[in-house]
Amino acid sequence: MAEENIIFVGKKPTMNYVLAVVTQFNSNNLDKITIKARGKAISKAVDIAEITRHKFIQTAKYDKINLETEVLQGEHGESNVSSIEITLKRQ
Amino acid sequence: MAEENIIFVGKKPTMNYVLAVVTQFNSNNLDKITIKARGKAISKAVDIAEITRHKFIQTAKYDKINLETEVLQGEHGESNVSSIEITLKRQ
Repeated sequence: MAEENIIFVGKKPTMNYVLAVVTQFNSNNLDKITIKARGKAISKAVDIAEITRHKFIQTAKYDKINLETEVLQGEHGESNVSSIEITLKRQ
Repeated sequence: MAEENIIFVGKKPTMNYVLAVVTQFNSNNLDKITIKARGKAISKAVDIAEITRHKFIQTAKYDKINLETEVLQGEHGESNVSSIEITLKRQ
């Protein structure tokens, strides 16, 4: 999957990411986009996917939802953080 | 699905819910359990599922993951909130 098909969710407002997803779908005429997030940003990733689906691209369905655990190297050793990958596919 | 197969995630610490999931799997000998959460608790629900799978019940796989939007009636009118339902199935 090319990098342009992946949106990484961070600390910006939810609607910034929704706009990024919608823009990718429309300008680049993609049929699949994956939204990735870790830790507390997981809730925001779900919001982004749901807002995109309900308000902007009604033909988008969930193609795949993966949950995983990533091991991060921090100052105080390793820590585990959950992650989500939500793939939206336009019909 | 009987009520005992569903764990609703709220404000308690993550490990309380992990313990509830593991207990349901083991004491009641269930093969499927669904973890439900809304809004900011969604990240916690993913943590609970991942910790259960990695540390306690290694044979549990994801059977189904649903994302939805619920409409809540509040003091200031309606508001939308995202929700997740994660179903773990023991092989």
